Amino acid sequence: MPVNYKMLIQYDGTRFYGWEHQPGNEMTIQGKLETVLTHMVGEPVEVIGAGRTDAGVHARGMVANARFTTTKTPEEIREYMNQYLPDDIAISEVRIAADGFHSRYKALGKIYRYTCYVGDTKPIFDRKYVNTLDKMPDLKKMRQAASFLIGTHDFASFCGNPRMKKSTVRRVDSIDIEQNGDYLTFTYHGSGFLQYMVRILTGTLLEVGCGKRTPESIPELIEARNRSLAGPTAPAKGLCLLQVDY
Amino acid sequence: MPVNYKMLIQYDGTRFYGWEHQPGNEMTIQGKLETVLTHMVGEPVEVIGAGRTDAGVHARGMVANARFTTTKTPEEIREYMNQYLPDDIAISEVRIAADGFHSRYKALGKIYRYTCYVGDTKPIFDRKYVNTLDKMPDLKKMRQAASFLIGTHDFASFCGNPRMKKSTVRRVDSIDIEQNGDYLTFTYHGSGFLQYMVRILTGTLLEVGCGKRTPESIPELIEARNRSLAGPTAPAKGLCLLQVDY
Repeated sequence: MPVNYKMLIQYDGTRFYGWEHQPGNEMTIQGKLETVLTHMVGEPVEVIGAGRTDAGVHARGMVANARFTTTKTPEEIREYMNQYLPDDIAISEVRIAADGFHSRYKALGKIYRYTCYVGDTKPIFDRKYVNTLDKMPDLKKMRQAASFLIGTHDFASFCGNPRMKKSTVRRVDSIDIEQNGDYLTFTYHGSGFLQYMVRILTGTLLEVGCGKRTPESIPELIEARNRSLAGPTAPAKGLCLLQVDY
Repeated sequence: MPVNYKMLIQYDGTRFYGWEHQPGNEMTIQGKLETVLTHMVGEPVEVIGAGRTDAGVHARGMVANARFTTTKTPEEIREYMNQYLPDDIAISEVRIAADGFHSRYKALGKIYRYTCYVGDTKPIFDRKYVNTLDKMPDLKKMRQAASFLIGTHDFASFCGNPRMKKSTVRRVDSIDIEQNGDYLTFTYHGSGFLQYMVRILTGTLLEVGCGKRTPESIPELIEARNRSLAGPTAPAKGLCLLQVDY
């Protein structure tokens, strides 16, 4: 009988075309995981991720599940995977999950963090994980703008997929904007996020912080449900999936 | 009249064949700096570094000096260099130095840090800056061994250059060995270090920490002046030049 395994995964998304398996393109996180597990088990394994991170987006706490039959213990599975995965993907944990566990459908919430660097010198050692800004945006204004985004809204203005047919309503529980020395972080906790949503929210908040739009303009931006009225999609490399709640 | 400029430099050494300019090989830190400054000034500029870091070794506080004539202010020089240097080399500071300042001859001491990772999961985001160990070595034994290395000694046993003709006597002021969570750091402060010396010292201390040699064996190892009796040269990627004292 196949067992349903839950995996906690970290990756540096720099080299990858995102999470989701794409025909003819092996450079996806899902593709790498499926290749290693299929090799281990000896028959095709499908890996289901809690979300589909975009090309270049990182993760410290992605969750996935997969059903397969093996004589290995969860710890042996983890060791096997870490041995055969490239050095920019790591499995932090493998556990046996309830048979009904589905990493995407059962997810209750997610935490994403977007990191900007505003220092005087180029960020040599973090350069693949931060978005560099010329000057520190106005924290107070950005926090004020963020307060309008909290709650359950139709986030169509912040959805990068113009052909989105399903609901664009999501619940955002919190947006914490913090400065730590030369770093500026935006931490988003919500029920789930639309394609590019965190990056478009960040791009819009940064415009508020730089005085290009006012905090008070956010409610009508939400109301407009028009992607072209929001700010730019902030670069992928600053984004990291920190946690998935169940 | 040419002015002598002092520069504070950071780099991720991963892609480079070390600091020192090599004929026919442009992938050196010195080579990159000289190319950019020569282009800026319009005539050949020589950059003198405080030390010659090996291939793959990083720096957060390398110091160099160069003499040239320009109408730019030090801050303009810094901005020009950061703009044209690749994204893994940054200039933190440019200052006008005394004419007699020589970054290597005037250096009084250096601080190097060697970082190991001993966590359960592969270090995804730090993987190019740490040496991964299977288990935490014995800190107490390593500190005991390190105490024998403090002081002025002939470090020929820890010199990677078998044809070294100059003195192999150096003064080591301190070796601090610290565990911070999953990280183990060796911080070396001394008058200067021989080729590969910090990496060989680290490789030898790690052998002590893993029980392959005793702390008490260190004095005779120093006395032997024989590289083949010391431990292995620890991998370059864990090493970083933190500071040069003047």
